[in-house]
Amino acid sequence: MSQEIFDEQEYERRLSRTRERLREENLDAIVVSDPANMNYLAGYDGWSFYVHQAVVVTAERDEPIWVGREMDAGGARATTWLAAENIRSYSDDHVHSPHDLHPMDYLAGVLEELDVADGRIGLEMDAAYFTAKSYTRLQQNLPEAEFEDTTLLVGWVRIKKSDRELEYMRQAAEISENAMQAGIDAIGEGVPEYEVAAEIYDALIRGTDEFGGDYPSIVPLMPSGDHTDTPHLTWTDREFEDGDPVIIELSGCRHRYHSPLARTTFVGDPPEELEEAADIVVEGIEAALEVAEPGVTCEAVEEAWRETIAQYGIEKEDRIGYSMGLGYPPDWGEHTASIRPGDETVLEENMTFHMIPGIWTEEIGMEISETFVVTDDGVETLAEFPRKLFTA
Amino acid sequence: MSQEIFDEQEYERRLSRTRERLREENLDAIVVSDPANMNYLAGYDGWSFYVHQAVVVTAERDEPIWVGREMDAGGARATTWLAAENIRSYSDDHVHSPHDLHPMDYLAGVLEELDVADGRIGLEMDAAYFTAKSYTRLQQNLPEAEFEDTTLLVGWVRIKKSDRELEYMRQAAEISENAMQAGIDAIGEGVPEYEVAAEIYDALIRGTDEFGGDYPSIVPLMPSGDHTDTPHLTWTDREFEDGDPVIIELSGCRHRYHSPLARTTFVGDPPEELEEAADIVVEGIEAALEVAEPGVTCEAVEEAWRETIAQYGIEKEDRIGYSMGLGYPPDWGEHTASIRPGDETVLEENMTFHMIPGIWTEEIGMEISETFVVTDDGVETLAEFPRKLFTA
Repeated sequence: MSQEIFDEQEYERRLSRTRERLREENLDAIVVSDPANMNYLAGYDGWSFYVHQAVVVTAERDEPIWVGREMDAGGARATTWLAAENIRSYSDDHVHSPHDLHPMDYLAGVLEELDVADGRIGLEMDAAYFTAKSYTRLQQNLPEAEFEDTTLLVGWVRIKKSDRELEYMRQAAEISENAMQAGIDAIGEGVPEYEVAAEIYDALIRGTDEFGGDYPSIVPLMPSGDHTDTPHLTWTDREFEDGDPVIIELSGCRHRYHSPLARTTFVGDPPEELEEAADIVVEGIEAALEVAEPGVTCEAVEEAWRETIAQYGIEKEDRIGYSMGLGYPPDWGEHTASIRPGDETVLEENMTFHMIPGIWTEEIGMEISETFVVTDDGVETLAEFPRKLFTA
Repeated sequence: MSQEIFDEQEYERRLSRTRERLREENLDAIVVSDPANMNYLAGYDGWSFYVHQAVVVTAERDEPIWVGREMDAGGARATTWLAAENIRSYSDDHVHSPHDLHPMDYLAGVLEELDVADGRIGLEMDAAYFTAKSYTRLQQNLPEAEFEDTTLLVGWVRIKKSDRELEYMRQAAEISENAMQAGIDAIGEGVPEYEVAAEIYDALIRGTDEFGGDYPSIVPLMPSGDHTDTPHLTWTDREFEDGDPVIIELSGCRHRYHSPLARTTFVGDPPEELEEAADIVVEGIEAALEVAEPGVTCEAVEEAWRETIAQYGIEKEDRIGYSMGLGYPPDWGEHTASIRPGDETVLEENMTFHMIPGIWTEEIGMEISETFVVTDDGVETLAEFPRKLFTA
């Protein structure tokens, strides 16, 4: 199935770049636990990351090895490009085991078989699903191994996108446009927040006339009213009221690739203060998009934003964006480059970022975001959606 | 906000039972990282678990302390019942930091301030979002502390539900019924899988006429055709075909409480083999529900299922259910009691389980599930949905 999404040559290029990094870091193997990295290298795609699983890449071996739960091996056979013998699975008594069996006991056996048990092994020490216990069990099982933290190794390999990856991100952007329109259309005085969330979800998954949408790595967020400064609260039964600002942040998703988009709408007649804030955010984001091109640093992009809004007396020094693309819950970010002061990552063609600056007055917040790809001489925003304050 | 969902007395009862467990285990404090446990003890509810956060409970102190990202402190003030001084947050340069700052450096400072830095501290070593790096950073910061694995400590406190919790699970069950009906109605020859997913999602979030739905901890799953044995693959652009069996597993969600439900439908005229399998699954699940009551062990419930299907020559020894309720992605399970051979957990009134047995022939799979609460003399299933094979 994965070969329909990307051809095998693309997986081989990804692997070969990853193996090059292993050699540079003098590593014998890495254990890849982040589901996005597992997908990137092996094509694996399933909602099974609530149990322990991994893809093992060694410096020497051609193909990676997928390790997961027996119940999910069929899913690995269906979605990865790997040969059957490279799909290994542990029995169900390793799952929430009363017998003190742990999936990492099984994985340690695979590493022994691969003859790297006394080698230098990279672990994604800060990846969401690589737990503290996974680490201590690997330590207990492999006392001769030397472990290194390779949390971002594959993330940095992922940062420049292929044409096919960009195609899926553009498709995700089309879905984002539809879902944003659905959300803006649905919001109104007396409408419960959950109804708007339902409309957005329907659009996110129904996709376009040509293709469907995948589940996004983060649910649609729409902080409103007094809560525009609490960006990660989710919808409730509350009804929107006249006078509510509402920030909608969402992302379409296609084959696990995202293109996030944020806009702000206002229920009723917006106060002049918010209109002004919108103009400033638009000017700031456009200034930042204007300077972004290959050779420019992430911090220089943030600086363009910051200096623009400073003209209006607004002083903020924030992270206003991050590299992203392929992802699984809980996050679509890649955790590598950030658009913020101090980040000296140099932009290169085909890097992709979500830039989401905002300003907050005493009472209300305002955000406008764009997902962009760095081109040979500038940037291209993936979605086409008016940059302005909407009203409902 | 949390006080509208549960009153403060309920949180105090939860805390007092948790503190009792701390004393039994001779612990000075626990660091609670599982978002479901954080919600259970503090009421916190936000999609912020992609950064490190925790609730700290000490054996001595009345109120827990919420620790998270500065950007989310407003969300903590809005959703928890905690006093403002018990909401602590780290600055954004701890997030994907280029300066080697880690949120656990900040959390270690909180533990020092609480005077437990040289004490026995429980960590949820195998909780999804408690990473290996979180653990090693706490070790580095607190060399005098003695760490214990308390992954399931709060989970076992959660296993018996209060009346209010059951009320939310019953509401979730109503949503599950609506969403299952929407899914079954939508499936048909030539309909793409994503359209069915969109209908289900719309129903899950639109909820009922009385209240809306929350996002479920697991996306709706609908393995079909050859893939009924790959339970965790998600929807694609594929169109359903005549002759496809489709297993739908979903859960409504209300205030983060779930009531999962699975049914099987068939596109076209089902083969006799599948009709027979359906009858066997129904007989098996009914036998298991019949024996379940306070005083009976989890393994005895599984045995009733297993012995029933054995009469038809089917031999399987599986986990067929698990304790569940409150949850966040990636999982709605509590990871404590399982309905499987060897689990001697004794059922008590107000425990809640999702029982999801199934049988697979050479070609096709068949599942029917029920979420039930243990009553004083048996069980009550939360959803009312016909137990049978559906056709489309």
